Amino acid sequence: MSQTEPATFYHNFRIYLDDTDAGGIVYHTNHIKYMEHARREWLRQQNIRHYTAQGDYQFVVSHIDINYRKPLMMDDLITVSLAAQKVRAASMIVVQSIYRNTADLEAQAPASTATITLACIDKSLKPTAIPPHIATLLPKT
Amino acid sequence: MSQTEPATFYHNFRIYLDDTDAGGIVYHTNHIKYMEHARREWLRQQNIRHYTAQGDYQFVVSHIDINYRKPLMMDDLITVSLAAQKVRAASMIVVQSIYRNTADLEAQAPASTATITLACIDKSLKPTAIPPHIATLLPKT
Amino acid sequence: MSQTEPATFYHNFRIYLDDTDAGGIVYHTNHIKYMEHARREWLRQQNIRHYTAQGDYQFVVSHIDINYRKPLMMDDLITVSLAAQKVRAASMIVVQSIYRNTADLEAQAPASTATITLACIDKSLKPTAIPPHIATLLPKT
Amino acid sequence: MSQTEPATFYHNFRIYLDDTDAGGIVYHTNHIKYMEHARREWLRQQNIRHYTAQGDYQFVVSHIDINYRKPLMMDDLITVSLAAQKVRAASMIVVQSIYRNTADLEAQAPASTATITLACIDKSLKPTAIPPHIATLLPKT
Repeated sequence: MSQTEPATFYHNFRIYLDDTDAGGIVYHTNHIKYMEHARREWLRQQNIRHYTAQGDYQFVVSHIDINYRKPLMMDDLITVSLAAQKVRAASMIVVQSIYRNTADLEAQAPASTATITLACIDKSLKPTAIPPHIATLLPKT
Repeated sequence: MSQTEPATFYHNFRIYLDDTDAGGIVYHTNHIKYMEHARREWLRQQNIRHYTAQGDYQFVVSHIDINYRKPLMMDDLITVSLAAQKVRAASMIVVQSIYRNTADLEAQAPASTATITLACIDKSLKPTAIPPHIATLLPKT
Repeated sequence: MSQTEPATFYHNFRIYLDDTDAGGIVYHTNHIKYMEHARREWLRQQNIRHYTAQGDYQFVVSHIDINYRKPLMMDDLITVSLAAQKVRAASMIVVQSIYRNTADLEAQAPASTATITLACIDKSLKPTAIPPHIATLLPKT
Repeated sequence: MSQTEPATFYHNFRIYLDDTDAGGIVYHTNHIKYMEHARREWLRQQNIRHYTAQGDYQFVVSHIDINYRKPLMMDDLITVSLAAQKVRAASMIVVQSIYRNTADLEAQAPASTATITLACIDKSLKPTAIPPHIATLLPKT
């Protein structure tokens, strides 16, 4: 993976105490939360402001396949990556990884890597096509 | 405090890993979360079903004064108490405590005790009178 | 799936406000949190008390494959199922589903279903064999 | 309050979906979580790195008095302020506010304001003096 690869987006986040647990590491579901935060920043970077409760559509997660390899710890400054793998009419698949150190991403194995499917749904929670003004902003895959 | 005192409500909750932190104890804001859960069960017991997003009013917290005395730990089965201290037209004040052991509540100092003010607001987030069908169910203070 | 099937464990949980989001539904990572809570209750039922920070081993999640089919909502009383699919020397694989209604589980499609791999690690976070006193309590698969 | 006042520290945070609830606003305990995050950044700025689980002391919250005035919303970029009000041998009191807009803090009423007491405790969770190398870094009040 290269940081100059066009389709890959990166965002850094700080780990705070409430995301850790009494085992001394970040509670496992928070890896997936950080990935969601990175998707939000990815959309924000493309000027896609879609506060979910106010629009006539929203993206929901329909499938996640995640491998955990290394723990995240209190005070870590992590990098979360995002690469759009496939954009379809009413869904998209992204691949995301978390790196414990923000420097030298290529030299380290990610702490976790996930393939995540996002489905576009309307206000009645039914699948719907991604709106054209959003679809045009998404990468072609 | 007596478990037979009419105005006092009790509910038990289990502590799970995600609510603890790397300091080995429950993260401090979760005490306040458990108190909110107990208020929800108190309303449920009185058949007040008010899923906040669907009604034309909701209760929001406007003030909290909380003292922490003892930590809560993973796997604890805790008791949260609730006594309505004052019910007004558009707000109410409750006193809530958390006990680490569900047995023999009178013999132990609570882990935390809070005085919490709840304000009733309408859909535009403005203060509004507590609806009569709710107000009649609340204790007279 | 049958509720009398020996290897399947069930536990009920209530959905509270903090687990929902402004989209009006339960935030997606909380499905995975409820599954962790059910594993904790499954171990508790077998008298396996292993507060992770205090033992010389702990189980960590190493892989999750989860499908989301239906949203969970505020105030839902959900049932989480657990069936051990494979128990190995240093890991185990469980299959877990969440049902929105606690009654008539067989008649409804689950809101989400996951296959989850748990690895046993020691205090230095290295893989280690599941301790014999725990292994003997686990189902044979 | 003036942004040039020496004892006042400011840090910005982004609001993400998981911190909102089905009422459409940020769940109330998360205000208090953001204040804890700001305290962590305040210590970090002074090169006080004290990952709580690894030191021989930690700060715990012993008292909070918080007033909520305005809701926080999804996607908000908020500013959290911190002013040390009193530093004692084994505890300190800080005053913290949250502002919904990061610009023009003086022109807006804060969304919430809290007075928070932090107690220094040792590994056995007993009160202990703030270590000298930390105490020398704290503001004189």
